[in-house]
Amino acid sequence: MKFPRVLIIGGGFGGLYAARQFRDTLTEVTLVDRSNHHTFQPLLYQVATATLAPSDIAAPLRWLLRKQKNTEVLMAEVERIDPERRVAVLDSGRELPYDYLILAAGARHSYFGHAEWEAIAPGLKSIEDALEIRRRFLSAFEEAEKSTDESERNAYLTFVIIGGGATGVELAGMLPTIARHTLRGEFRNIDTATARVILLEGGPRILPTFAEDLAAHAERDLRELGVDVRTRTMVTSVEPNAVCIGDERIVARTVLWAAGNAASPLGRLLGPTVPLDRAGRVVVQPDLSVPAHPEIFVVGDLAVMTTDGKVVPGVAQGAIQSGRASARNILRVIHGETPKPFRYHNKGELATIGRYKAIADFGHGLHVAGHPAWWFWLFLHILYLAGFRNRLSVLIEWGYAFFRYGLGARLITRRS
Amino acid sequence: MKFPRVLIIGGGFGGLYAARQFRDTLTEVTLVDRSNHHTFQPLLYQVATATLAPSDIAAPLRWLLRKQKNTEVLMAEVERIDPERRVAVLDSGRELPYDYLILAAGARHSYFGHAEWEAIAPGLKSIEDALEIRRRFLSAFEEAEKSTDESERNAYLTFVIIGGGATGVELAGMLPTIARHTLRGEFRNIDTATARVILLEGGPRILPTFAEDLAAHAERDLRELGVDVRTRTMVTSVEPNAVCIGDERIVARTVLWAAGNAASPLGRLLGPTVPLDRAGRVVVQPDLSVPAHPEIFVVGDLAVMTTDGKVVPGVAQGAIQSGRASARNILRVIHGETPKPFRYHNKGELATIGRYKAIADFGHGLHVAGHPAWWFWLFLHILYLAGFRNRLSVLIEWGYAFFRYGLGARLITRRS
Repeated sequence: MKFPRVLIIGGGFGGLYAARQFRDTLTEVTLVDRSNHHTFQPLLYQVATATLAPSDIAAPLRWLLRKQKNTEVLMAEVERIDPERRVAVLDSGRELPYDYLILAAGARHSYFGHAEWEAIAPGLKSIEDALEIRRRFLSAFEEAEKSTDESERNAYLTFVIIGGGATGVELAGMLPTIARHTLRGEFRNIDTATARVILLEGGPRILPTFAEDLAAHAERDLRELGVDVRTRTMVTSVEPNAVCIGDERIVARTVLWAAGNAASPLGRLLGPTVPLDRAGRVVVQPDLSVPAHPEIFVVGDLAVMTTDGKVVPGVAQGAIQSGRASARNILRVIHGETPKPFRYHNKGELATIGRYKAIADFGHGLHVAGHPAWWFWLFLHILYLAGFRNRLSVLIEWGYAFFRYGLGARLITRRS
Repeated sequence: MKFPRVLIIGGGFGGLYAARQFRDTLTEVTLVDRSNHHTFQPLLYQVATATLAPSDIAAPLRWLLRKQKNTEVLMAEVERIDPERRVAVLDSGRELPYDYLILAAGARHSYFGHAEWEAIAPGLKSIEDALEIRRRFLSAFEEAEKSTDESERNAYLTFVIIGGGATGVELAGMLPTIARHTLRGEFRNIDTATARVILLEGGPRILPTFAEDLAAHAERDLRELGVDVRTRTMVTSVEPNAVCIGDERIVARTVLWAAGNAASPLGRLLGPTVPLDRAGRVVVQPDLSVPAHPEIFVVGDLAVMTTDGKVVPGVAQGAIQSGRASARNILRVIHGETPKPFRYHNKGELATIGRYKAIADFGHGLHVAGHPAWWFWLFLHILYLAGFRNRLSVLIEWGYAFFRYGLGARLITRRS
């Protein structure tokens, strides 16, 4: 007997949690991702800042799905989708036919039409991105130590982060503590505590998706750490050695990008009947399928989804819940039932500020900030790393970072 | 008052242990290395085979030397040495003057005049090398899983290791267990247990530096693991898809190089008075200095050193002991004493075969093989990782690998 073939493109939160719903069902599932691992994205900033090792927050997709004998994992790039013939075409030219498709290809960075900024200001979406940021961040101190020129030294000790969302805030919060505590005492020619961290946000306040009081709390915490937080600040140009804001030129050798997202180009391949928003995201129907193709579902960061008229935020929970919901709807259709509209349940939003503070927005006006929120964050993330075998080693790294101001993964690996 | 300036080039075992001798002495020490970390080389093969994470076996040099306030660490490439003017020139053009120089720049691979083989068959000396091997080794199984062509699939499931010294044997021993136990059950289209591992050695036996009975024991253990061990086998050509031995062509997509060493080119820069051997290593005087330059010392893999007429082997202990001895001799000269000839103390040689076996040669005919040797190996390596803070996390990874056949760091990271 031939079972319905489900193809899942993308092994992030959306794709992985969709795949897991098909365990012990009468389906044939194929999950395709360009990398061999699932990445726990909310902790990427800790890899970028050398606190955790890549393998602490990433695990092979085929290991995570090893017990689902009806599921195969292919490490490949999807080049095209043909919705009429119901096939996806891999980079090798091989065609993967499907009966149902879940597109969970996520998002990359958007440089708002300035593609040339990407090489100067890398963003943070993958393990490779995190390693590139770690390389630049650690190398900056090494170059400063070597430099015999005062202004060059200052340029190496200036770190600009563009974008005041959760990623920007989390990156900005880590750097001052590392510069003042971890690295201090190891350099002979520079005082690492003089490093400047500048966080630039175009909008009126940082953390726009959080409640205003929490964002204000976070901004205060960042300022206490020494971060120069500047809101309503539009970057006009990013150069190899500087960031320009109108007439002002901030000389800095390390610039990180946390400002904008652009959906995966795969959304465009679904054909002219499928509506996209300005960022290239697919505007899905209430049941997460796309118009004219009830067999195609789009989830996670690649989808524009709404609940009670509000757009679902591009966070891990949104991807996890929509991934699961799309799989359940496919199973409903297979069993001759009607798919159900997706409803997002906001379990709260979290962001850390530096090493020991956080803000938590549980909705319904329940706001927590400072150390209690950080302990909650710690508890939650250890819980969520459950599918991974690395919990214990993450705990050790964090314990080390917490009690000794140490960093577990301070390696500069050259590009090969 | 101006203290004598000691310049150490290289942060491997030789350079690091030399630097540590200058703690609390009236000297100004500079250690230069092209990377920011010291690598515990004897465990590199475990990173290459995805068992340990890079940060488990590497730590920042400036962190390791943070308590020596008279020591600065520079991450830089040395381009030239001018023994007459007593300066080393960095890639930036900056000159580092010295009163005493310790050259501990180590070795890279030698492809015996076939530089074009390097891209096909990478060697294993640095963290980057290990990551490249890990990438190829894990990707081979991914490609085999995707392939729809039988002969291509077999080519991806064939692993050739060229060179039967300790590195070759340790790499070859890890692969069968991983293929048969760890990966099995995670693939749907291939049986990973059918992977072939072929170890090629040009000489009459593997592990030529070990006693004959131990090498024979190791060969038996390798064969039991399923490794195809071939001695007296000279590779005549390495192609992208095959290794040729005369007329025989072994079709294989993954070829690893563990066959030959070439000394760092820095040895040649010491001038015409300094004798080199065929591999480019510096033939040092008994006190480890070089002829006509009593202020220049060469240690570790870059040096040809002898004790009782026997050449000191290119192992970690040789580098550690010669590094320390060179530093002590410099301190003697500074104090108006005569430098002492270096004597190598053979503390024994160790190699693991697969996950739970090893051979140990303690000299004086004291030979241990099998599981007892492996437990000794484990004990010793945990002890030696002491300078590192990663002991606990290495223990966890090993425990995981031992009891669950798991692998802690199975990430394929793309080249950036």
